[in-house]
Amino acid sequence: MKIQVELDTRPIPYPAWELPASGQSGALAEFYGIVRGSEDGAPIGGLDYEAYNSMAISSMIRILEELAVQFPCEAAKVIHRHGPIRVGEAAIYIGIRSAHRAEAFALLTAFMDRLKQDVPIWKTGVIA
Amino acid sequence: MKIQVELDTRPIPYPAWELPASGQSGALAEFYGIVRGSEDGAPIGGLDYEAYNSMAISSMIRILEELAVQFPCEAAKVIHRHGPIRVGEAAIYIGIRSAHRAEAFALLTAFMDRLKQDVPIWKTGVIA
Repeated sequence: MKIQVELDTRPIPYPAWELPASGQSGALAEFYGIVRGSEDGAPIGGLDYEAYNSMAISSMIRILEELAVQFPCEAAKVIHRHGPIRVGEAAIYIGIRSAHRAEAFALLTAFMDRLKQDVPIWKTGVIA
Repeated sequence: MKIQVELDTRPIPYPAWELPASGQSGALAEFYGIVRGSEDGAPIGGLDYEAYNSMAISSMIRILEELAVQFPCEAAKVIHRHGPIRVGEAAIYIGIRSAHRAEAFALLTAFMDRLKQDVPIWKTGVIA
């Protein structure tokens, strides 16, 4: 599986990838995780994320490599933003290209579960 | 849930929607189903889809309304293309916006399952 992982303080573009041109991929599954306008019931202007950069990137790559054994897909692209992120902006993008949709969704969902547990990127504060 | 359903012979744009600006949605889950370069092991140039238009649209809306009871989301957008579709082009787009990702993926996956069973849109031939 081809893997691209980026950690960036700049806004995540929409769209963050493109349709596969290979003729091999029958599915592109994508997810944007977006900062919501409230946190614990109180209105906020945004969130601050901190990352332990080199370890966050290597850990995301390792998780994708591990999951690709169970869910064979053609390519995965992940962009995680860090620093201050305003409400309505994406904090994470995940795109998975695969022959069929089942493995793309399975890999995407499993990656999000592992990300929260195992990758050193944290919400460190709220922007008013 | 806000619902938009389109049936069109023109190419599905990429991206087919936009990031939600409301501050309510924490998740945008998207799926593009793309025509692959082979069918039953033989190389092809594309596929032809036929739709029973009015019934296909009303049936997609009804399925989304039913699924929204089980999986409450904020908005759903579906574009199904019909007519000739070349390899590498999308035959379907589904986008779901929701507060959290779990219900967006659940609704999206359930919709695809129902689509194949219950919506009058068929592959009617192969383009060389």
